[in-house]
Amino acid sequence: MSADGLIQSLTAAFDAIPLIDPHSHIEPLSPVSKSLDDILGYHYYTELAHSAGMSQKLLGPDADPRDRCREIIRFMDRYDNTAQYGWFVNICKSFLVFTGDRVTAKDADALFDASLKAFAAKDWEQQVFAKTNLEKIFLTNEFDDNLDGFDTAKYVPCLRTDTLVFKFREPGVRERLAKVTGIDVGDVPTLRKAVRALFERFVAKGAKACAISLPPDFTPTPEGSSIFWMLAENCREFKLPFDLMIGVNRRVYEKGVHQGQDLFDRRCSLIQYRELFNAFPEVTFPVSVLTSGQNQELVAYSWIFPNVVPNGHWWYSNIPAYIGADLRERLQGVPKTKLVGYYSDAYKLEFVLPKYGMYRRILAKTIADEFVRPGTLNETEAVALGTRLLRDNVREIFNV
Amino acid sequence: MSADGLIQSLTAAFDAIPLIDPHSHIEPLSPVSKSLDDILGYHYYTELAHSAGMSQKLLGPDADPRDRCREIIRFMDRYDNTAQYGWFVNICKSFLVFTGDRVTAKDADALFDASLKAFAAKDWEQQVFAKTNLEKIFLTNEFDDNLDGFDTAKYVPCLRTDTLVFKFREPGVRERLAKVTGIDVGDVPTLRKAVRALFERFVAKGAKACAISLPPDFTPTPEGSSIFWMLAENCREFKLPFDLMIGVNRRVYEKGVHQGQDLFDRRCSLIQYRELFNAFPEVTFPVSVLTSGQNQELVAYSWIFPNVVPNGHWWYSNIPAYIGADLRERLQGVPKTKLVGYYSDAYKLEFVLPKYGMYRRILAKTIADEFVRPGTLNETEAVALGTRLLRDNVREIFNV
Amino acid sequence: MSADGLIQSLTAAFDAIPLIDPHSHIEPLSPVSKSLDDILGYHYYTELAHSAGMSQKLLGPDADPRDRCREIIRFMDRYDNTAQYGWFVNICKSFLVFTGDRVTAKDADALFDASLKAFAAKDWEQQVFAKTNLEKIFLTNEFDDNLDGFDTAKYVPCLRTDTLVFKFREPGVRERLAKVTGIDVGDVPTLRKAVRALFERFVAKGAKACAISLPPDFTPTPEGSSIFWMLAENCREFKLPFDLMIGVNRRVYEKGVHQGQDLFDRRCSLIQYRELFNAFPEVTFPVSVLTSGQNQELVAYSWIFPNVVPNGHWWYSNIPAYIGADLRERLQGVPKTKLVGYYSDAYKLEFVLPKYGMYRRILAKTIADEFVRPGTLNETEAVALGTRLLRDNVREIFNV
Repeated sequence: MSADGLIQSLTAAFDAIPLIDPHSHIEPLSPVSKSLDDILGYHYYTELAHSAGMSQKLLGPDADPRDRCREIIRFMDRYDNTAQYGWFVNICKSFLVFTGDRVTAKDADALFDASLKAFAAKDWEQQVFAKTNLEKIFLTNEFDDNLDGFDTAKYVPCLRTDTLVFKFREPGVRERLAKVTGIDVGDVPTLRKAVRALFERFVAKGAKACAISLPPDFTPTPEGSSIFWMLAENCREFKLPFDLMIGVNRRVYEKGVHQGQDLFDRRCSLIQYRELFNAFPEVTFPVSVLTSGQNQELVAYSWIFPNVVPNGHWWYSNIPAYIGADLRERLQGVPKTKLVGYYSDAYKLEFVLPKYGMYRRILAKTIADEFVRPGTLNETEAVALGTRLLRDNVREIFNV
Repeated sequence: MSADGLIQSLTAAFDAIPLIDPHSHIEPLSPVSKSLDDILGYHYYTELAHSAGMSQKLLGPDADPRDRCREIIRFMDRYDNTAQYGWFVNICKSFLVFTGDRVTAKDADALFDASLKAFAAKDWEQQVFAKTNLEKIFLTNEFDDNLDGFDTAKYVPCLRTDTLVFKFREPGVRERLAKVTGIDVGDVPTLRKAVRALFERFVAKGAKACAISLPPDFTPTPEGSSIFWMLAENCREFKLPFDLMIGVNRRVYEKGVHQGQDLFDRRCSLIQYRELFNAFPEVTFPVSVLTSGQNQELVAYSWIFPNVVPNGHWWYSNIPAYIGADLRERLQGVPKTKLVGYYSDAYKLEFVLPKYGMYRRILAKTIADEFVRPGTLNETEAVALGTRLLRDNVREIFNV
Repeated sequence: MSADGLIQSLTAAFDAIPLIDPHSHIEPLSPVSKSLDDILGYHYYTELAHSAGMSQKLLGPDADPRDRCREIIRFMDRYDNTAQYGWFVNICKSFLVFTGDRVTAKDADALFDASLKAFAAKDWEQQVFAKTNLEKIFLTNEFDDNLDGFDTAKYVPCLRTDTLVFKFREPGVRERLAKVTGIDVGDVPTLRKAVRALFERFVAKGAKACAISLPPDFTPTPEGSSIFWMLAENCREFKLPFDLMIGVNRRVYEKGVHQGQDLFDRRCSLIQYRELFNAFPEVTFPVSVLTSGQNQELVAYSWIFPNVVPNGHWWYSNIPAYIGADLRERLQGVPKTKLVGYYSDAYKLEFVLPKYGMYRRILAKTIADEFVRPGTLNETEAVALGTRLLRDNVREIFNV
């Protein structure tokens, strides 16, 4: 089989695997887009358009959604080289009956109209699930999110803890915690009790992970009053993996678009987690790193620590150049049973398809080059390896 | 078309684009070489020969230039694997009627003679411009450089500010500033006045950028007495881009050859420029980073900040392995209108041709692999994309 | 010739070059394995099996070696994607008459039996030398190791100095030093005398290098009492290269398997060695870096400093993804006469073959892609370039 034929064949095999997406920002009561505005409101597009010169005038809540979409699309001829633009074209083709190869300003109205029509279908959510071959998707829940009213077998709750760890002293947080747990935190013992109550609440609703994003200079330490450490203790007790998303500085570009203000300091090391990884051998830590430059640490720490596993390709590293390099390194150095291949990080379900599509093509190419062409794996074994990264490991590691 | 045919076709198209080279160290009154000694005196050759064992004896001002060239060439069989050696062979073939594939010790005299003959042509400067398809080239001017006596439409002045920022207290600098501005700096207000006068002087002569190289531990802060901050303020007022060349430590190898003493500490982050980028949204910062490891930061900061743009491939990153990786990342993550593809950094005009030649081949291969073969761009569109990186963005960003 | 044909042809030519392996942990009085247990006891396998979930129960000294091998092999279906697994299959095929493509649990007993038989041959050591095309291999000797009873022309002594520099104050070290040098260290002058005596001892036995591994935060400074600095002074006096293996933190995973506890902090720079490299221009420093992210520094420092040379691909960087990238960068930026291509780091001789085999394939592919296909080198010249990295430079740099 030709090189390209092999990659196409593997990609097709991977496309057929039902997805369990282990990290997203989907709202379970509003999981799909209502119009093109929900698609183009994804921060990637507002960021890139703004970075390329678009003013933020039309990004405000009072602006007309159709005008906003026109403007973001009008700027696409400045960023149509990016991977993110590729996702958008993929969405238009997959969900909006678009047949062109490039979206330009003149397509804006037709796409907007098509989105209103398509997304209004009563079964749109089911259609997206079906077209995406999506089985389950993990949520990112604030500690006091409502966990009722949706199918937790499809929308898997996940306790997100940034607020608890980094904003506990901000006004209202303690009150929200009291409201949801019934515990009024006044000292360390009541704090411990309240945190534990959150885990009870989430586990009762089928939560499969605790998660947090962390700044590059964060180093967890076992102080009695550390909420972070309490989270790890509860992960141990409740047997939940603790997703660490390492390396983000918030609000670096203060006047940036919504969700487009965060950047990083690449001078960050997993050695900062040395004490944590040693203290909790029973807790699995699926680790995402923000920079590809940290991937070798992630490979090495995962190769040595049984409880550290590489988790997907996060944010600024979620473009093919970084995914390809990072994936290849992980496949050469980390036991395959520990590789959580990908997650969508999506805010709306329509993005799961193009993002996983990108990943599957890279996965197919990487496995073809690294294992099939050198004669190490035949095609059936190659499909099994890809399935492991796409699905099996998510099931095993998150106990789904 | 075959893969190689496509790359050749794109390379040929890129070769036909007239160059505007946005950063060099050309002396406008002596822009071309007078003999092979000017070619081989470029620090890349003296560095590599010395690093490979050549003594510095023949590098002194009293040594015979022909002997010096013989010696540097004699050592080439120790460094003929490098990209820099490739530039030299390219120069010999393009400008010195050399027809071999490799330059060895026995070629030294013939090349030296050929250089004397070729470079003595009255129109040599015009010949080099023509063969190089060069339209304009930016200079690197000390604040008190003479800006008269050359065609500033061809040789574009650029205010280099390392001396002002890092050597202001050294003997003679204040005097030089007084001489060129007529302002005797005694306090912050007179300093501000003098700095502003420099911008007036340069802008009057058609300067298109302010530039500086910065050590890896530098963090600009808005103190009233900070010359760096004043430069940014003047860039805002005079609408000049501010080239930041980030990451060099000077004189690390103290006994190294001339211009071959500088290295770096890779532990450097663009987060150090957070306050600057936020404070000057109206100033465009074309940023060069010294290490490929910092390229992901450059991609991410350029993707988020409208005023940050990636600028070329600098110095230790100016070899194909780094250019190729960095370019691919930038093309996937940054709006294409923000990508300043390349600059020569040349000291003599003869180097523009081989350096841009190297870049254009990498650009052609990258665009072929990333856009044409996957079917995203046809060949005409691919040429337009390359033209954007090679020329259009220089014109737009530097307002040429 | 087809691309694959060219790589195969170059690989075959490289396979024919007798190896001088400039760094290993071979015990010269027990250089080969006695059973499969010595092969699978290599920390790479215990680490990966443990990381993939194997308990350490069977790793203790009291466990049955056959049971231990069964267990490590049983877990291979969790890490059979790794480069290290590839080395093991290669060993089974080369030394244990194994004819399959994959080793699985059911092969454990047959392999164990085969190992007992094969390794019991009286000339096993000679067989391994012959099959590996190995001429000489460097050792890693503690300062008081017995240097008698083996052929130092084959097993080249090398003074390893971690204990002296980092554990000098631990109980027993001073006594061991006194015992082997006859000098009772009480102050700096006696310390200097004792260190010098070690060099005399090693050089008399044909030692060809002094070596040390260093934590990422180490910065050598010229204090009178610094043992590290004394080592460099003696390297100068005795004309020994000083191998620096930069970047390892010991015992990061405290409960890890034997030799599987060390990791690193990637925030490490060669700028820390600035003073050392300047102070000892006469000493050659073959430098190994633990992370690929530090390779650009290694390229740049080797390109500038005559006394800095890149040395092999160490530990966590010794997998194809990192070797390939790092090698390509070195070949483009560093004089070829300064590139020490590879060392095995092996504990048992059987590992030299698969590790060098991996390297030679990468070397062949890299030279084919970078030099032969672009027309810069013909195949004969390409073989010469590879020979230089594999053998010539080891001979010249270590004065073998």
